[in-house]
Parts: sequence; C-alpha cells; structure tokens
Amino acid sequence: MGMTMTQKILASHAGLETVKAGQLIQAKLDLVLGNDITSPVAIKEFKKLGDSEVFDKDKIAIVPDHFTPNKDIKAAEQCKFIREFAQQKEITNFFDIGEMGIEHVLIPEKGLVVAGDVVIGADSHTCTYGALGAFSTGIGSTDMGAGMATGECWFKVPSALKFVLKNEPAKWISGKDVILHIIGLIGVDGALYKSMEFTGDGLKYLSMDSRFTMANMAIEAGAKNGIFPVDEKTVEYMKEHSTREYKVYEPDEDAEYDEVYEIDLSVLRPTVAFPHLPENTKTVDEAGEVKINQVVIGSCTNGRLEDLRVAASILRGKKVAKYVRTIVFPGTQKIYLQAMEEGLLKDFIEAGAIVSTPTCGPCLGGHMGILAAGERAVSTTNRNFVGRMGHVESEVYLASPAVAAASALTGVITDPELV
Amino acid sequence: MGMTMTQKILASHAGLETVKAGQLIQAKLDLVLGNDITSPVAIKEFKKLGDSEVFDKDKIAIVPDHFTPNKDIKAAEQCKFIREFAQQKEITNFFDIGEMGIEHVLIPEKGLVVAGDVVIGADSHTCTYGALGAFSTGIGSTDMGAGMATGECWFKVPSALKFVLKNEPAKWISGKDVILHIIGLIGVDGALYKSMEFTGDGLKYLSMDSRFTMANMAIEAGAKNGIFPVDEKTVEYMKEHSTREYKVYEPDEDAEYDEVYEIDLSVLRPTVAFPHLPENTKTVDEAGEVKINQVVIGSCTNGRLEDLRVAASILRGKKVAKYVRTIVFPGTQKIYLQAMEEGLLKDFIEAGAIVSTPTCGPCLGGHMGILAAGERAVSTTNRNFVGRMGHVESEVYLASPAVAAASALTGVITDPELV
Repeated sequence: MGMTMTQKILASHAGLETVKAGQLIQAKLDLVLGNDITSPVAIKEFKKLGDSEVFDKDKIAIVPDHFTPNKDIKAAEQCKFIREFAQQKEITNFFDIGEMGIEHVLIPEKGLVVAGDVVIGADSHTCTYGALGAFSTGIGSTDMGAGMATGECWFKVPSALKFVLKNEPAKWISGKDVILHIIGLIGVDGALYKSMEFTGDGLKYLSMDSRFTMANMAIEAGAKNGIFPVDEKTVEYMKEHSTREYKVYEPDEDAEYDEVYEIDLSVLRPTVAFPHLPENTKTVDEAGEVKINQVVIGSCTNGRLEDLRVAASILRGKKVAKYVRTIVFPGTQKIYLQAMEEGLLKDFIEAGAIVSTPTCGPCLGGHMGILAAGERAVSTTNRNFVGRMGHVESEVYLASPAVAAASALTGVITDPELV
Repeated sequence: MGMTMTQKILASHAGLETVKAGQLIQAKLDLVLGNDITSPVAIKEFKKLGDSEVFDKDKIAIVPDHFTPNKDIKAAEQCKFIREFAQQKEITNFFDIGEMGIEHVLIPEKGLVVAGDVVIGADSHTCTYGALGAFSTGIGSTDMGAGMATGECWFKVPSALKFVLKNEPAKWISGKDVILHIIGLIGVDGALYKSMEFTGDGLKYLSMDSRFTMANMAIEAGAKNGIFPVDEKTVEYMKEHSTREYKVYEPDEDAEYDEVYEIDLSVLRPTVAFPHLPENTKTVDEAGEVKINQVVIGSCTNGRLEDLRVAASILRGKKVAKYVRTIVFPGTQKIYLQAMEEGLLKDFIEAGAIVSTPTCGPCLGGHMGILAAGERAVSTTNRNFVGRMGHVESEVYLASPAVAAASALTGVITDPELV
C-alpha cells in the first residue's frame, strides 16, 4: 500500500523508507514555533531539560502576537520572559513589535517554511503551512520545549481524507467558503487525527491566500494537518518569499484514504458558520436576518492581502452601518504597508472601519474588540466557540472577508452580491 | 480689581457682571463630556436624578476611548451601557469605533468647543480646550451626571497665574517642552486650583497643536484650567472646524494674578520629565544614558498631526533600535487618514514602528503597550506616576515627539538634533 503526501514527508524526516497510519515515529524538525502564550511554558520545559543551547537557532521562531502590543502587565511579563530567552539563545527568528505579525501569516511571508518541511508549533493553527506542501501541525508547549532542545518530535502517523476539488468557484467564493463548507459536511471531529489532503482540478482556481485559509482551518475539523500539492502558484510563492530549497512530495497512486470527498466548487455559496461551532454552517441565503454589533476582518485565517482587497472592494466609497464596530487587522507589518500603498486602508477608514496593528486581538477574546453579553460579531476568524470573542452570551458568526464586509454595511449578515 | 480671562468667561456663564477668586458660582455649560470609564458612573448618577431627558442632546459628548477597541469583557459591558444610553437619549455626539478618536483630540476637531465656552468633562485632561480660549476643566462623574441633567455646574472661581511667553523657540522645541519646563519650574501643585493663563509675544510661534499640548498638561501642575488668548491661529482653527459662534474674552488690564512668570522660549532645550512626576524635569543634555524598552508617540497630549509630522521627519528612512517597541497612536481617525495621505504612517512602518488605531491605550496603563517590571518608556503622554504605564517597577519618561522619535532610533534618551 502506498503513502499519502503527509506520510511521505514524515517518512523522509524519520529516516524511514515507508511509514503507515498509526505508526509511532520520531521525526526531524525544520521549524519549531511558539507565541507569547505558549512559549513561556515551553521555555520552562526547555530549562528543565538542562537549559543547553537550542538545537538550531535558525530553526526556532518565536512570535509574540496574541496579547501584543502588551495588553496588560501579565502579557508584558510573558513577552519580557521570551524576549530575554530569545536574546540569550540568539534565536534568529524572534519577531517583536515592529517586525512582527500574526505568526501564521508572518512565518510563510518570512520564507521560514517551504514544501517538504516538517513544522511543529505550539499553536493549534500551525497547520496553516500545509498550504505550501509542508507537514505542519500544532503541538503542546511541552513538545515545543523538547523540540527546541532536540530538533525532533514524535508523531503517530495519520491516516488521511482526500478532498477532490472540482471546477471554478463563482464570484465571492474564496477558500474560507470552501473550508467552512467542508467542515459543515464532515463536522468538527470529521477528520480527527487525520490528514486532510486537498487535490483536484479546482485547486488551480484557489490563490495561495485561499489555500492558507483552508489549511489553517483543518484543525477545526479535528485534523492533524491539512496539505496541498505543490503547483505553479506554490513555487511562485516560495520563490518570492524564501531562499530555502524545497522538496515536493506527491502521494503514491495507491495511497490509502479513509474517505474521498468530491467538492464541486462551482455550486458553493458564501457560507457562514453559526454559533457555537464551525460545523454549524448555512449558506448566506439560509442565514435569515441576523443583526450584528461588530465585524472583524483579519486574523491568521483571513488577514492576508487578498482578504483585505476583497473587503476593501466592498466597503470602498460606502459607510459601515451605524453602531457596527468594524475592525480590520492586517496580518503583518508588510501586509499593512502593502494595503496602505494600494489605498485599501484609506478605503477602510473612510468607510468608518478602524485598522489595528497586527495582533491576534479579538479572535481569541484577547483584546482589541471584545464582545459584551448579547452582542454578535461576523468574523473572518476561525473559531466561534461559546465565549470565544468575549462574554459567554455573545455570538460569533464565521465568514469570508466578502461576507464580513457586506454585513458591516448593512448591519445584518449579508450576501456580498447584494451590496 | 479686574478679572482674568477665566473669570470673565465664568461670570458671563453665571449671569453675573463680575466674579472674584474664591466665589462659588453656578454656571451654564456649553458642553458636558465623558469617556468609557467615567460615563457609566455619571449615567448611574443621572438616573438617580430621575432619568429625565438630558438638558441638551447636542451639548453632551460621549467618547469611548480609554479601553477601546474593547480591551476585555468589562470594557465591552461599559461601552454597551453608554452606547444604549446614547441611543435612548439620542445623544448627538456619541462617537463609537470608526468615528472616534481620543476625546481631547476629537472634540476640538469636531468643532464642539469654541472660544468663550464653559466645558466640563469627566476626565482630568478636559483642560485641553483652553487652547481655544474656552474655560474647560475636568470634573468627577457625579458632576457630569448632574451636568447632563441640568446643563449647569458649580465652580469656585479660580485665581490665576500668568505665564508671559517671550521670543521664538529654537528648532525641535514644541509646546511639550514649554509645558514640561513650566511644570518643572512651579511643581505638580504649583498651580493648585488656579488658572494658568498664557500670554506674551512668544505665543505667535506656538501652533494650535502646541497650545493644545500645553493646555492639556495644565492639570499636571494642579491647575483648574489652562487658557490661551484668541489670535489669528485660534480663529483659523475654529473656522476650519466649527460652525458655532465664538466669543473672545480678554483679561482686564488690572486683572489680578497670584504670580507672573516670564518664560524665554528661545533658551529652552528639549525637556524630559523623569520618573515619577511631571515636575522631575531635566533637559535632554542633562539626561545621561537612560536605556529604554518602549517609545510611545501619541495620546491626547501629543497625538496630533504636527506631532506625527515631527516624529516621522526623524524616523523617515531610518530604523528604530532593536528591541525598542515603538508605538504610534494617531489621535483621531481623521488624523490617521491625514497622516496616511502625507506618507507619515509609511515612514513609521518602514522604520519598524507600529501604528495603532486611536485609543488612550498605554498612556494610563490601559492596554496596547503595557510595561513589565524594570522596563522603561519614553512617552509623549502626560503622566509618569508610579505604575502609570504598567508594572509598579516600570518607568515613564515624558518628552516631546521629537525626543521620543530620536530615542526610538538610539534606544537611549536622545537629543533630536543628534540623530
């Protein structure tokens, strides 16, 4: 029996010819990642292991992005702790205020991941980098600590689900709609500890930004990782952002999949995940009249340039509805600058939205746009669990930047075609 | 005995021909102001008074700016409470996310204060509007509640200190240096419950933005208010921003002043207030080597366009020092947009600073840049009390935007002439 893309990458990094689903392996790591919440715990674990040098100071990335710019004294102390560790260990890729961005937008932009890599990160959305044909997954802080010391991590080799994407999506349909549709189809545990491998002729219509969005949300179906094949768009992205050599792993023809799903992109409609699970999806046509108090456009899921372009194209020359707080979060300083130079930030400000410096902010109920009891947000983020963005009686509706922007204009969940 | 500027304004609003220092009066109000911290308390007091209509829905301004965009659930609940009150009472000047800014930058920009007004605000830096030749002072939330109900407030008529400003200031010397110098001279209680009346031929060299900065910090010398005469610059500002009629009050020739200070602007040097009081001033030449971790450029004191222009002129084409978090806060959405259109925000981002949406943020240790133990910030804000920007063992050094920007480049407190 052949191997999947994921299994081939894992086998190569474990020094094995073949691996099979369920096998426990020890694999070499190309990157170990942490943020301001998880790194302090990982560093303490690292110190317990003897506080030696890190395995490779170029292969660790620490990005304080969750409660930064420092939300409070606790956040300030956490960041100070990791900053001092980064200085002491001469971590090359410590990204502080001014260089930083949301980790999962920043890391590919900095060229720190390429096809064929094995990446672990102490953050559940580390699966984002599967868009580049890498194996990338979220782990706990203890594994991060051990990974920084040894450059290795253990894995149980995942089985896989195959998603064959077909045909060209309609206007306004982006990766966010595709992944929300898929999560609605298979459920939040539909891919539990499995790989989600995306393939099919519909892939060529999905931009890299859309692919990052889809891989990012693989964890919302419970997946170990999401992964895309490498095509011209992937190569172009890597050449633009990285000087590292990449390696392409294609699944064997006889690779085994637990299930194969065919998704016709041409019939998808803008999709919204209702509270309180990403699987509670409805098309925008089925949404009914849902009044909202806040719109969030950004995050590691949808804070990339394409996302801001789509949102700005809808908001341009119009005004957001009265009492609808509309908050835009570019993913990185570079995207912020690009969006400014393209005039997108001007569109947002003139429409009555505000633009934040890059931060995870409200996505996880951190800061910069927390909801009160009874308030509702349409958000381009990745989770709508109870209390995710604030009060336990608040609600989050997950959607694409297009739906979010359209909803900001009307104050109710809205089809972008109708504004 | 004649009356000061302040006394004349108060007399007119109390319906009296003359008033004298120490007299208790009841004066009509042209504007009653509150923010997200103080308004909830004021609204509760207002409701105790019978929850009638407000005295004038056009003469109340509520600006949620301190813990917004909502820092946490508590902030979200506070903002929700005042938003609902504003909707219920049809408060014209409720400025939510997207329309907002830092209250003391926003209110003059919106034309809500003109010369001759009497303004109270439940925020100590309400004294800012004295730059326009208005009497404007910070009061408690109870007085704000009563003010919203009755349109009146009681005052004890203040005596006054006169500051005669002479000659032209040198390059890099702005209103911030002047007011820090004055506070250093007279101390943080040097003007306790008095008016600080600014006059002299040096005034003509001070821009409106510099005057706002100076009036803003009158409270840091304990003053009841700070006030400037109306000149061509004031009139130009009011014509640009307001449609309201203004009235000019000049002090009587025989007005009584407790003290008269002559300040030669031409000999002032860039001035820094060391921890932990605004009176602990040194010139930049006397500062020694003070290493810093953070630079804050913005706030109701120095978040205006001129401030951003000066800072950008210093940072343009250069890079902030490694590990110096540099955070720029434009005062309002309008200033943000203007700064973007002038290319200033690009200068900041390219220099490695970050740009926040308008908020009071770190100035009061709120959010968006809090200090850890042992950290130091150079900040263009107004207070450097113990723990003001975070941990009780952190330190804040108050300075002008020029000094702050220069210090960001070097990582130590630096004369802008030297970078």
